[in-house]
Amino acid sequence: MAAGSRPTAGGRLARQIDFLVEIDKLKGVLRRSYVMGGARLENTAEHSWHLVMLALVLAEYADEPVDVLTVMRMLAVHDLIEIDAGDTFAYDTAGAATKAAREQAAADRIFALLPDDQAVELRSAWEEFESGASAEARFARAVDRLMPLLHNYHSQGRSWQEHGIRPEQVRALNATIGEGSEPLWAYARSLIDAAVGNGFFGR
Amino acid sequence: MAAGSRPTAGGRLARQIDFLVEIDKLKGVLRRSYVMGGARLENTAEHSWHLVMLALVLAEYADEPVDVLTVMRMLAVHDLIEIDAGDTFAYDTAGAATKAAREQAAADRIFALLPDDQAVELRSAWEEFESGASAEARFARAVDRLMPLLHNYHSQGRSWQEHGIRPEQVRALNATIGEGSEPLWAYARSLIDAAVGNGFFGR
Repeated sequence: MAAGSRPTAGGRLARQIDFLVEIDKLKGVLRRSYVMGGARLENTAEHSWHLVMLALVLAEYADEPVDVLTVMRMLAVHDLIEIDAGDTFAYDTAGAATKAAREQAAADRIFALLPDDQAVELRSAWEEFESGASAEARFARAVDRLMPLLHNYHSQGRSWQEHGIRPEQVRALNATIGEGSEPLWAYARSLIDAAVGNGFFGR
Repeated sequence: MAAGSRPTAGGRLARQIDFLVEIDKLKGVLRRSYVMGGARLENTAEHSWHLVMLALVLAEYADEPVDVLTVMRMLAVHDLIEIDAGDTFAYDTAGAATKAAREQAAADRIFALLPDDQAVELRSAWEEFESGASAEARFARAVDRLMPLLHNYHSQGRSWQEHGIRPEQVRALNATIGEGSEPLWAYARSLIDAAVGNGFFGR
């Protein structure tokens, strides 16, 4: 193909467009969870949209008042680093050991595509999410944990069974939900109990 | 599978969770555009995430000041009706004739899954987007049009060529971008010109 012609944009807009084109790659990052019904694995871009919707619909259950825009921004950007670092399965302890270094390197590259002010803004949102240091971050982390439980429940525990995950591990990992939302953690516990009752962890 | 056990939730939370589970189906709605690189068609859920990111990064180009949360909410929900109504290709005039009726029926069903207050809130966001009656809606519509141009450009015009779309049609349809953002419309015109120059509409 000839590629002699290029669209014209000032330096700032050109960097923003380059970033927005680059992040299309998040659509090719596969997670361990299946779309509901189990037809295929879910990718991280569609997962990020689903989390934005959880933030919009469930914000009233945050234990502390949260700014919904801050939560949505955090959830929209929190997995961008997976473009380089890949998705680290939440129950993968070997992967967890190298996760921080891989994700920092990814953040260094990906956010730096943006103009400096926006690189700082969006990287800060990611770091805030990772740290859990604000009410918004704790709530965002809670919905990020709740979502895979819903996926597993609605695909009859398929990902749990494939990876040999036990109910005790699920309860331990997801206690994080209770740091952001006691009502959602109560719901999550009842979901795990129902999954056990339905044999979704195997018999 | 046995399904005797159920998670426990109050009526309001149960409705919210039912809605959030139902909208997982948006991940199975295919658009006419390809992910960049052209490996596969894009689905509407990942497209919606990408638009939320455009809103975050490009809001400074709105011709009138916009509330970014309002734009993000609008973009996150504006295609939910495709779960029932399907994606209507922007250049499909036959589909356009029935689009409004199909999408109203879809909205009647899907938003009504939510508690009444949230059904009104999110349906209003969709209607505002459709009407283009606010600065936020005009800007949201602009980025919703810009995105497929970027996809086509970065997959060498594949969707344009498959559907026999001509540059004049692309310029006419996307003039909508200029109603929300003159700088983004100037960029879009240069992108279409570059696509012509590169032979992305065929020779």
